[in-house]
Amino acid sequence: MSESFKGVFAALTTPFLEERIAPDFFRENIEKYNQFELAGYVVGGSSGESVQLTDDECADLISTAVKAAAPGKTIIAGTARQSTRLTVEFTNRAADLGAQAALIVMPSYYKSLMTTEALKTHYLVIAGKSKIPVIIYHIPQNTGIFPSSELFVELSQHPNILGVKDSSGNLSSFAETYPRMAGHSVYFLGAGSIIFPALMMGATGGILMLGSVAPDLVARLYRLFLEERWKEAAQLQRSLVPLNQAVTKNYGIPAAKYVLDQRGFHGGEPRLPLLPLDDSIKPRIQGILRNLGLID
Amino acid sequence: MSESFKGVFAALTTPFLEERIAPDFFRENIEKYNQFELAGYVVGGSSGESVQLTDDECADLISTAVKAAAPGKTIIAGTARQSTRLTVEFTNRAADLGAQAALIVMPSYYKSLMTTEALKTHYLVIAGKSKIPVIIYHIPQNTGIFPSSELFVELSQHPNILGVKDSSGNLSSFAETYPRMAGHSVYFLGAGSIIFPALMMGATGGILMLGSVAPDLVARLYRLFLEERWKEAAQLQRSLVPLNQAVTKNYGIPAAKYVLDQRGFHGGEPRLPLLPLDDSIKPRIQGILRNLGLID
Amino acid sequence: MSESFKGVFAALTTPFLEERIAPDFFRENIEKYNQFELAGYVVGGSSGESVQLTDDECADLISTAVKAAAPGKTIIAGTARQSTRLTVEFTNRAADLGAQAALIVMPSYYKSLMTTEALKTHYLVIAGKSKIPVIIYHIPQNTGIFPSSELFVELSQHPNILGVKDSSGNLSSFAETYPRMAGHSVYFLGAGSIIFPALMMGATGGILMLGSVAPDLVARLYRLFLEERWKEAAQLQRSLVPLNQAVTKNYGIPAAKYVLDQRGFHGGEPRLPLLPLDDSIKPRIQGILRNLGLID
Amino acid sequence: MSESFKGVFAALTTPFLEERIAPDFFRENIEKYNQFELAGYVVGGSSGESVQLTDDECADLISTAVKAAAPGKTIIAGTARQSTRLTVEFTNRAADLGAQAALIVMPSYYKSLMTTEALKTHYLVIAGKSKIPVIIYHIPQNTGIFPSSELFVELSQHPNILGVKDSSGNLSSFAETYPRMAGHSVYFLGAGSIIFPALMMGATGGILMLGSVAPDLVARLYRLFLEERWKEAAQLQRSLVPLNQAVTKNYGIPAAKYVLDQRGFHGGEPRLPLLPLDDSIKPRIQGILRNLGLID
Repeated sequence: MSESFKGVFAALTTPFLEERIAPDFFRENIEKYNQFELAGYVVGGSSGESVQLTDDECADLISTAVKAAAPGKTIIAGTARQSTRLTVEFTNRAADLGAQAALIVMPSYYKSLMTTEALKTHYLVIAGKSKIPVIIYHIPQNTGIFPSSELFVELSQHPNILGVKDSSGNLSSFAETYPRMAGHSVYFLGAGSIIFPALMMGATGGILMLGSVAPDLVARLYRLFLEERWKEAAQLQRSLVPLNQAVTKNYGIPAAKYVLDQRGFHGGEPRLPLLPLDDSIKPRIQGILRNLGLID
Repeated sequence: MSESFKGVFAALTTPFLEERIAPDFFRENIEKYNQFELAGYVVGGSSGESVQLTDDECADLISTAVKAAAPGKTIIAGTARQSTRLTVEFTNRAADLGAQAALIVMPSYYKSLMTTEALKTHYLVIAGKSKIPVIIYHIPQNTGIFPSSELFVELSQHPNILGVKDSSGNLSSFAETYPRMAGHSVYFLGAGSIIFPALMMGATGGILMLGSVAPDLVARLYRLFLEERWKEAAQLQRSLVPLNQAVTKNYGIPAAKYVLDQRGFHGGEPRLPLLPLDDSIKPRIQGILRNLGLID
Repeated sequence: MSESFKGVFAALTTPFLEERIAPDFFRENIEKYNQFELAGYVVGGSSGESVQLTDDECADLISTAVKAAAPGKTIIAGTARQSTRLTVEFTNRAADLGAQAALIVMPSYYKSLMTTEALKTHYLVIAGKSKIPVIIYHIPQNTGIFPSSELFVELSQHPNILGVKDSSGNLSSFAETYPRMAGHSVYFLGAGSIIFPALMMGATGGILMLGSVAPDLVARLYRLFLEERWKEAAQLQRSLVPLNQAVTKNYGIPAAKYVLDQRGFHGGEPRLPLLPLDDSIKPRIQGILRNLGLID
Repeated sequence: MSESFKGVFAALTTPFLEERIAPDFFRENIEKYNQFELAGYVVGGSSGESVQLTDDECADLISTAVKAAAPGKTIIAGTARQSTRLTVEFTNRAADLGAQAALIVMPSYYKSLMTTEALKTHYLVIAGKSKIPVIIYHIPQNTGIFPSSELFVELSQHPNILGVKDSSGNLSSFAETYPRMAGHSVYFLGAGSIIFPALMMGATGGILMLGSVAPDLVARLYRLFLEERWKEAAQLQRSLVPLNQAVTKNYGIPAAKYVLDQRGFHGGEPRLPLLPLDDSIKPRIQGILRNLGLID
């Protein structure tokens, strides 16, 4: 497993200006992120509202990120479409723009037809045709797709399948699946509340919304882990839970963008149908940030 | 409620040729459907693999359907995208191409954020900006979104919201919801196994995959209903259940396309990740068609 | 199929007095129900809070019902326990008390182990040892168990399995399953909002909470069906939907008991953890009853 | 928080002899468990097939466990019934028999009525009347009940509510919930694959099926945790995952009982509808045990 895919990635949000994507804001955010010890950035993932963007908008953001990222930062692009064919096309477009790996969420519209066989075929065709390594993205709370762990184990044998990003929050699944995957495999957690325990249990790293809203603290957590300062790490992890839950499970992207605004990044409003964060929630978020010492 | 939106619609499939859409095949299919007493056609719905097509491919099919449809046949286009903005854009593109109404499935990726408020805002913005009437498309088995009936009742008050297509198969929901919707509202069932009972209970009509694979029998069923020949209708409805379940719940689009091939339409294979119908299933489907007298 | 199991059954509620079951109230309710053209009564079903009763309490109610029912009324007892063994024991106790059939809900605690094989074994063992015919009770909204239609088809071959009660509200499942079941099989719907459409499609009858709260109207609906007065039946069915949804999906047993109190039956409060009907809901229920002419 | 409720508990299985419970076998098992550093035993939990036992059988087992347990071992009894009233009665019966706390799973039959308000009332009434402390048992994969974390936080304020056992496997929920509960609260994990990470994050302990089938290794894991030998603990935890998944998620109680038989405990067959472990699975389980050095 390459060092390029080890550690914690920020799952970037997409800033808009008058409902259009704002690549300049996006670049400025990345320039700020560059100062932290993050492994790299994910562009066009769930955090980036990628399903709400056009292909051209996604491409624009990938291109911007590739240019703005500091040397050594790895760029992973979310490139899934519902069909295998369009996924291959967009994945290779992302590769041509400089993305180093593709994060590919499971197709989910025809749920009853997404058998193990169908999903296997889907990923094998993509892996066979993609110019860059493929990361299988498992986020059942969004897709409603619950494959068996065998799928991950079998797909991991393909040399162009790099591994898994698992946002299920189910550490038992990780513990059951990862040891049976091919030796070259990575396993990223997508759940910021349990990234330290996952690292302790052998996870490769994290792809985290929390990495976007608290890059400083997430980088510090990873460093504490590397330095085997377990108790401090556990304590920092615990303190990060309220923030993580706020920007994921409880209020999601609108809350993450509000936090970014509070912290001097370009957050802004999400695209409809995501509603902007309700004013009544803002004091609660501010309280969380204050507890962490992130705002005064 | 206009007569244009009454009766049974065929939910069209999309024929491919060497993985590209085949508009000529699509046109030839429609020319055959024209001979049956169907109210019209839905292009780019779930049956048409619309989520697996590009915008240009969808537009091409809508345009083809508008030209190929016999006079008096209503064209409804599936135009949903995950964001409100892109849905509006594609809906108006469909309108410009001649579609008479837009069938708009619920956005479903950010499930936990798809509150009643978010869905309401989504549809109201679309209805306000769309050049053609909007039909709310409820298919929870695909979207994983289960709104309360209040959402449909409230949205139905908007003059540019024509009504609902409900593919849940839950006739109780229909019975509870429709009487409380605005007077101008339509309510289409998307479940071919219960279309006659639904009509008896006051439904406006159906938008059915079954209308594509058995346009003759579905048209006859609707005629029996209009002529109040209830017992014959109930008997025909019962006989249609195995075919309907085969092309929807049990084997889906791949089975529907196989039936079309058997009946002289252009069926063909679906796009991946939908797998072609397994050979082992084909005899069962042929048995069903034989029982209905549709093949020898 | 015997005539004893045809038509509409009232799914009885259980009256309590100072938290104890009140067999006298239960008897008085049944004496009132006797005047209506109902096929019989279900004791100890979901409507009767049976899971919240002791075996002795259930037995007491069955015994009371057997004695109180007018000649010709069929008594069906809910007799399921989570284990096969205890289900057999209680079923035969119910048989000894005079129950004519046993309604047996699926075991559901060990969900992941409730495979088709396990459920099949369960029902076959019970059917083999039960002194009275067994009705398989499917209510997935309560059990979380979703067996394939094959299970019902296979089990129906057993001579002591009488058929199915299906409270899923999914008329498509009924239409797909019932024609493939053994010739002697009954199929009861448990969904009062669609009982007329189900009868039109060939269902044997209904086991309905609506039969308890509106025995007069439900009996009239079934009579209209028998007399082939379809349009009147459809209209009556539509008018019953709000009441049915109130006492099932929307507010459940507490609402049903409130309706019974309003109509001169013994309703009363449910056992905790079911909370009594909230006062704020009562005017809505009264409005529904007034619309149906059931109260002034 | 008392020391009596700290550490790892074995969630005991129930041995049967010719379909009857076998208290002697149960006692002999406990006498063997006494030699390991376990905090105590849970009788009549999910692992013990309690929903498949009569009250008298449960009482017999509790009584046996109280007598057989070595001094200092804490006995927790599963005492939930579907109604509040019967839960209180059986909880106090368990208390009289010597159980030190009651583990009370959520009532789940009337799912749509199990609102936060109903669950809160249920547990508060029980806590108010129970002679022993109450542990709220959350196992959504069995109950289908998914309360918000607020419920746990609020209930934890009651002095007779000791805390939570959480078998969801969702460490994020734990991390979000526990810090907001009352200071006296315990939080047990029910997921053996993640017990070490949970302990690292501050959990009180575990109530584990794994504690029954591998009491030696689970006790060693807890000791490594206490001695802050994190790396060894993480490694042991990882090695335990296949066994844990086999006896829980993958094959459940039948597999656990098979393991017990292999290891010289009284395992035996479960009660129907749980089927005995399929022969085809046994070599896989043996392989797992061999890898752990538990059999030759």
